[in-house]
Amino acid sequence: MTRFGKHPDRDATDLGAEALLGAVADAGIDARVIEAAYCGHVFQGMVMGQRILAQVGLAGLPLSNVENACSSGATAIREASLAVRAGEHDVVVAVGAEHLTSQFRGALTPDPSDPEAAVGATMPGVYAMRARRYMEEFGMTREQLALIPVKNKMNATLNPLAHFHSSITVEDVLESRAIADPLRLHDCSPVTDGAAAVIVMSDSAAKKYANGRAVRLAASTLRSGSVDVEPTSMTFEPLTRDTAQDAYEKAGIGPEDVDFCEVHDCFSIAEVLRVEGLGLFPQGEYPGAVERGEANIGGRLPVNPSGGLLGKGHPLGGTGVAQVVELVRQLRGESGDRQIEGARVGLAHCRGGKAVGIEGAACTVQVLIR
Amino acid sequence: MTRFGKHPDRDATDLGAEALLGAVADAGIDARVIEAAYCGHVFQGMVMGQRILAQVGLAGLPLSNVENACSSGATAIREASLAVRAGEHDVVVAVGAEHLTSQFRGALTPDPSDPEAAVGATMPGVYAMRARRYMEEFGMTREQLALIPVKNKMNATLNPLAHFHSSITVEDVLESRAIADPLRLHDCSPVTDGAAAVIVMSDSAAKKYANGRAVRLAASTLRSGSVDVEPTSMTFEPLTRDTAQDAYEKAGIGPEDVDFCEVHDCFSIAEVLRVEGLGLFPQGEYPGAVERGEANIGGRLPVNPSGGLLGKGHPLGGTGVAQVVELVRQLRGESGDRQIEGARVGLAHCRGGKAVGIEGAACTVQVLIR
Repeated sequence: MTRFGKHPDRDATDLGAEALLGAVADAGIDARVIEAAYCGHVFQGMVMGQRILAQVGLAGLPLSNVENACSSGATAIREASLAVRAGEHDVVVAVGAEHLTSQFRGALTPDPSDPEAAVGATMPGVYAMRARRYMEEFGMTREQLALIPVKNKMNATLNPLAHFHSSITVEDVLESRAIADPLRLHDCSPVTDGAAAVIVMSDSAAKKYANGRAVRLAASTLRSGSVDVEPTSMTFEPLTRDTAQDAYEKAGIGPEDVDFCEVHDCFSIAEVLRVEGLGLFPQGEYPGAVERGEANIGGRLPVNPSGGLLGKGHPLGGTGVAQVVELVRQLRGESGDRQIEGARVGLAHCRGGKAVGIEGAACTVQVLIR
Repeated sequence: MTRFGKHPDRDATDLGAEALLGAVADAGIDARVIEAAYCGHVFQGMVMGQRILAQVGLAGLPLSNVENACSSGATAIREASLAVRAGEHDVVVAVGAEHLTSQFRGALTPDPSDPEAAVGATMPGVYAMRARRYMEEFGMTREQLALIPVKNKMNATLNPLAHFHSSITVEDVLESRAIADPLRLHDCSPVTDGAAAVIVMSDSAAKKYANGRAVRLAASTLRSGSVDVEPTSMTFEPLTRDTAQDAYEKAGIGPEDVDFCEVHDCFSIAEVLRVEGLGLFPQGEYPGAVERGEANIGGRLPVNPSGGLLGKGHPLGGTGVAQVVELVRQLRGESGDRQIEGARVGLAHCRGGKAVGIEGAACTVQVLIR
């Protein structure tokens, strides 16, 4: 992955090309063995992936651009894995890239024509309501919620590619600018430029090319938001639960087998909703677990060791791919100061589109096993 | 497919939902057997496919939005076929939809930041240069070129779902408003709203659900533009040739086996470049063949019996799917007044993104066999 942050002198194509060539170098392969590509992005315009291929000298390959809002990068990996499983290709690259600072202004809304968004139900507004409701239902304190950005920004100080490198305190969170009460600036993921890429191979190609460094993609599942799975709860995500259930079944594991995870902490409260939706902590218990250090690197179940969206940054299309980059590096034992000892099973979760409601959401869960 | 045309009172979600439900009705299946979906579109914003699913009561399914410029709909079909071949799903819907009249103004450019496009190398400008060059190299007359919109708009009068229903003459073409010399208004595909959907099934699902009405998707291939395959020729498309070659190999046929085709006639000259790139006519010979009626319905090799982009219209994401709808209906013998007798092998071709150049193009070829 590229350095995440603000890159005023670059564009998404350029960042995507750097990530793609980085993945090739990391895999130790000749780029010419790549047979096809998928590119996840949201705001980068037509045929952006094809421009990346042209820039790295791989024009000509089959490439599909995929968009699933904040799950776009993760979806690119899923489609790459399906192309491999179909027997169509043996070596496929999935790249996700976004130059968000140049393409996007203000609070994200899932649908610009949404009348509720126009009057304030933007992403920060909706997650603020969910935070308030969670505090009401489960007694989470504002200070407990602040411990999530504190943890993730601490983790980010150990990640040279993260957007932020300064640790913060609970007081820093509480004193930062109000965004949508009770959420403050440090509760919100930043506007980030960046890209990431992974090489997906068939078993036979991995034997041939991976030099024993491949990590198994045991599951890559995708679901959309539904009136059935998401009735009215602001504090629990059936969509996350069901997408995870699909992944656990495919991977032949349960939540108790997960050693660490990267989850979609677009806001502090989002991390709570996701780890509980994934079944990694019982509902209502995650804030206390964070307070006890259980989600820290070195804790019982490290959450967002990369820094997550809050600390590492959130270039929409790049995010889901960067999560898998973190999983791969952790599972290979290549994560330096933030290494989770003995990690064998990693899980990545993304959720894009509408935060609450019946339509327009996309959720992905990926399980990687050493 | 929906009626193609201007739908000021509707949106892409609504059109996509109509097409999806139409495909379900045509297939005679219960919509609940659909396991996953792909949605091709260009300008419709985040998670549009998920909104379609919600509208038809199928929210919850895995869905990926795919974008490959004018090849977006065709790419959705390719990805659906890969998901089936991977064994991940047995019944997948591919939908393409675009409400172009509300999302888009003026001459299309493949990349708004392209400095050449900013000074006039828009799509009409580039195709005008290609037409001029083709006339120079192969002696095509302006009147011969006009016979292509005359043919396609005549075919469209036989297609109740087409954007245009008025036949035109060579004089009408030559007297229509100048767009980019030598191209005039009738040489250009219109700004169209519309959607189309197809159901892609595994062999076992087709046995169970298709009541003998399934048509075999014998190949669905995709390539990107490349410096290697597209050096400097304005009058021949190596990208189209190579994507077709992949398809012929997969389908086990040659161009001589194709009974009819739908090709990407975004401009009159584009039809010439495509059928020659596909190997269906030798280079330089298509304009004469059109003059002799060989590409008419009832001719040796009917081209764009649906009316093509010029007559049926061109809602970007909807186009590639609608081509396959036409192939299926022709191969089933359900095309009424425009039926091609005895058709057994149909081919569909899309090309999106840059018309000439090394980057940012996507080409698809699909072969369907009765």
